Amino acid sequence: MPFQIQTVSARLVFLSSVLAPYAAAQPPARPATPNDTLVSPEALAGNRVAFRIYAPKADAVTLRGDFMEGPGAMNLEKDASGVWSAIAGPLVPDFYSYSFNVDGVKTIDPKNALVKQGIGSLDNMFHVPGDEAAFEDNKPVPHGEIRMVWYRSSTLDAMRRMHVYTPPGYDGGSARYPVFYLLHGGGDEDSGWSSIGRAGFIIDNLLAGNKAKPMIVVMPNGSMPRPPNTPPGPGPGAALAQEKFASELVKDVIPYVEKHYRALAGGANRALAGLSMGGGQTLRVGLTNPDMFAYLGVWSAGVNPRTNPDFEKRSAAFLENPEKTNKSVKLFWIGVGANDTLANAGSKHLVELLKQRGIRHEYHESPGGHTWINWRRYLNDFALRLFR
Amino acid sequence: MPFQIQTVSARLVFLSSVLAPYAAAQPPARPATPNDTLVSPEALAGNRVAFRIYAPKADAVTLRGDFMEGPGAMNLEKDASGVWSAIAGPLVPDFYSYSFNVDGVKTIDPKNALVKQGIGSLDNMFHVPGDEAAFEDNKPVPHGEIRMVWYRSSTLDAMRRMHVYTPPGYDGGSARYPVFYLLHGGGDEDSGWSSIGRAGFIIDNLLAGNKAKPMIVVMPNGSMPRPPNTPPGPGPGAALAQEKFASELVKDVIPYVEKHYRALAGGANRALAGLSMGGGQTLRVGLTNPDMFAYLGVWSAGVNPRTNPDFEKRSAAFLENPEKTNKSVKLFWIGVGANDTLANAGSKHLVELLKQRGIRHEYHESPGGHTWINWRRYLNDFALRLFR
Repeated sequence: MPFQIQTVSARLVFLSSVLAPYAAAQPPARPATPNDTLVSPEALAGNRVAFRIYAPKADAVTLRGDFMEGPGAMNLEKDASGVWSAIAGPLVPDFYSYSFNVDGVKTIDPKNALVKQGIGSLDNMFHVPGDEAAFEDNKPVPHGEIRMVWYRSSTLDAMRRMHVYTPPGYDGGSARYPVFYLLHGGGDEDSGWSSIGRAGFIIDNLLAGNKAKPMIVVMPNGSMPRPPNTPPGPGPGAALAQEKFASELVKDVIPYVEKHYRALAGGANRALAGLSMGGGQTLRVGLTNPDMFAYLGVWSAGVNPRTNPDFEKRSAAFLENPEKTNKSVKLFWIGVGANDTLANAGSKHLVELLKQRGIRHEYHESPGGHTWINWRRYLNDFALRLFR
Repeated sequence: MPFQIQTVSARLVFLSSVLAPYAAAQPPARPATPNDTLVSPEALAGNRVAFRIYAPKADAVTLRGDFMEGPGAMNLEKDASGVWSAIAGPLVPDFYSYSFNVDGVKTIDPKNALVKQGIGSLDNMFHVPGDEAAFEDNKPVPHGEIRMVWYRSSTLDAMRRMHVYTPPGYDGGSARYPVFYLLHGGGDEDSGWSSIGRAGFIIDNLLAGNKAKPMIVVMPNGSMPRPPNTPPGPGPGAALAQEKFASELVKDVIPYVEKHYRALAGGANRALAGLSMGGGQTLRVGLTNPDMFAYLGVWSAGVNPRTNPDFEKRSAAFLENPEKTNKSVKLFWIGVGANDTLANAGSKHLVELLKQRGIRHEYHESPGGHTWINWRRYLNDFALRLFR
C-alpha cells in the first residue's frame, strides 16, 4: 500500500478478542456479512482512494469531499453483495474530509472513526501523505501540548471551552510567550483547528525547522448562541451573535489567557486570525480595537457593503488613522481562494477599501475554494511571519 | 424544556447566516425538507427523550443505546414526511450513548454532533441532567486541564498520543502530585475517558468538594496494533498486543510522565485502573510489577481460567507473597455489573483466586451491565480513595 489509512474492525470483534482472557462469556455469534471485512477508505496506488459502504437496501449512495471542486457529488456503485464503492484521485498529498449520503441522509463512513467534529456536523477525514503534506504531518519532532481548557464566560454566564497550544518546553520553563488567537469558521467549534486544522502539527514543524517564533496559540469557540426570538439567517440575530463573540474574546478569553499562562502582554505580542466566520470576527474585533493586535489574518472572508453597511463606521478608529494604524499593525494578511464563491468578492472589496484608506496589507489569492485545504496553508504562511 | 440537549442547524444555514456580512455571494438556494428544522435528540417532560432521523427512502430504522439493557434494538416509526422517531425513558439522569441503524447501516444521528470517538466506532451522546448525574456534571468549579500529548513510543517506534489531566492550580505552582493511570476498553482510544468517561469533570467535582487528593490522571491509548500474520479473535495475536501495551505503559508512558510532569515517584504515588480490556491490562501490568502501583482498580474484567491459563504463573510474584503484596497494595478495588454477561463470571473468579491466596481486595457489584453508566461511577468511587 502506498500509504496508510486508519482501518478498523467491528466493535464485537474487538470485545471478543481482547476480553476473552479475562471474561468467562463470549458475545453471541451472528451471521457474517460483507461489512465485517470491509475497508474504507482504502489507499490505492497513485494517490487514489477507494470509498466503500455496506448498504444492501439503499437506492442511492453519494459522496461529497472537500477535494471535489464545485457543487455536486460523486455517485457510488453497488455490487451484488450490497457494497457501494467509488474511487477518487489521484489526489495531491494532504488531509481531506468527506461524508456519504445514503438515500438522502448524510452518513459518516462506519469504517472510519477519524472524524472532524463541528457544532452541528461530522465529517470523516483521511490522509494522503507526501511532500506537499509534510508541513502538516505528525513528525518525530518536539511537540507542543494542546490543552482543553474550561473557563467561566461572563459574556454567556456559562462554562465555555477553548483549546490552547503551548509550545515544546513550556512546562517546566519560565519564559513568557506571545499569543496567537486563532478562530474557526461557521458551524465549527474550538476543536476544529486541532483536528482538521492540524494547527499543533503545523506550528510544531515550523518550530522544529526554526521557521517561527515560539508562541502560545489560543483557539476559542467562536460559535455563539444566537439571541432568542431572532429569525434564522443573516440579520440582527447573526450580528448580535458576532458582537457577543467580540465581548467573549476581549473580556473573557484574553484576560483569562494573560492571567493563567506565561503570556507576554501588549499589542505587539498578540496576533489574531480566522477563517470565514472567524475572518469576520477578526475584522470585527481587530478593527474596533486597533492597538490590541499587531498581526491580523483574514482568510476566506471580507466585507460585503450591501449586507454589512456599518462596517466602515464601526472600524473608523482603524481606517481613519492610517499613520497610527500602519505603525501598530505590523502585518495585515488577507488570503482567499480564486474559486471561493462565498468570499472571493468580499475579500477583494476589503482590499479595495484598505487601499483607499492607505492601510498597509497583503493580499494572497490561492487556488481552490472555501476549504481547509487552503486554511492550513494560510496558517503555515502566516504563523512564520509573527512576532518578528 | 426540563433539560437541554445540544441542538444544531444545518451547515448551510450557518454559513449563510454568519458569513453574509463579509461575503458578496450566498450559497445556492435548495428546496426545504423536514430535515431542516428537525431536532434530535429532544428532551421531553419526565426525563424522556425523543430521537428523530429524516430518512424518507429507508425501509427500517432502529436505535441502540447504552440505556437499554440486554440485546435487541428499539424500532423507530416513520411519519408521512419521511421522519422516523421513537421515545425513550423515563431515564435516570446521566450521560448516555446511542446510534441509529438505517437499513442495516450503523448511522450517527445527523442532528447531534456530540459524539464519542473510538478507534473503529462512533456513537452519539446525550445528557439527562439531575441529581444522579451531579458528580459528572460540568459545574462552575475550578477545572483542571486535559492535555493531548504526543510522545515517541519506543515500543511501537511511532508517535503516540495520550490525554493527561492536570489538576486546578498545576500551572504556575511547584507542588508535585501522585499519578493515576486510567485505562479504557476495547475499541476505544485515549480520548474516551475525557469524552463519554467524563473523567475531568468527575475529578474536578471531587476536588471541589474536598473529597479527593489532587492528582495527575494519565489516560494512554491502550489499543495496540496486533502483530501482523496473527489471526483475528482471541489467541496469540491478542495476547501479544496486550504484552505490547504492558511495555508501552512501563517503558514509555510512565517514564515520560515522570520526566515531563511534576509527578511524585514511587509505588505509593501511583494508581492503575481500567475497564474491560483496560481491566485486563491492569491485571497484566499491576500483578507482574507488584511494587509499581499501590492502588489497583479492575472494572468489568476478571480472569477466565480456560482462555487465560497462564494468569497465575505470570502473576506469581504478586499472588505468592500475600504479606508483601498486602503491604505494598493499599487498595485492590474490583467492580462489575450484576448483568455484565461479558465479565461478571471472570470478576468472581478473580475474587475467588485472591481470597484463596490471601490477597486483600474489595468486590463491588453494581446493577447494570458492561457500560459507561457503571464505569463513571466506579471512577468516582475509586478516585476518592486514592493516595490517602
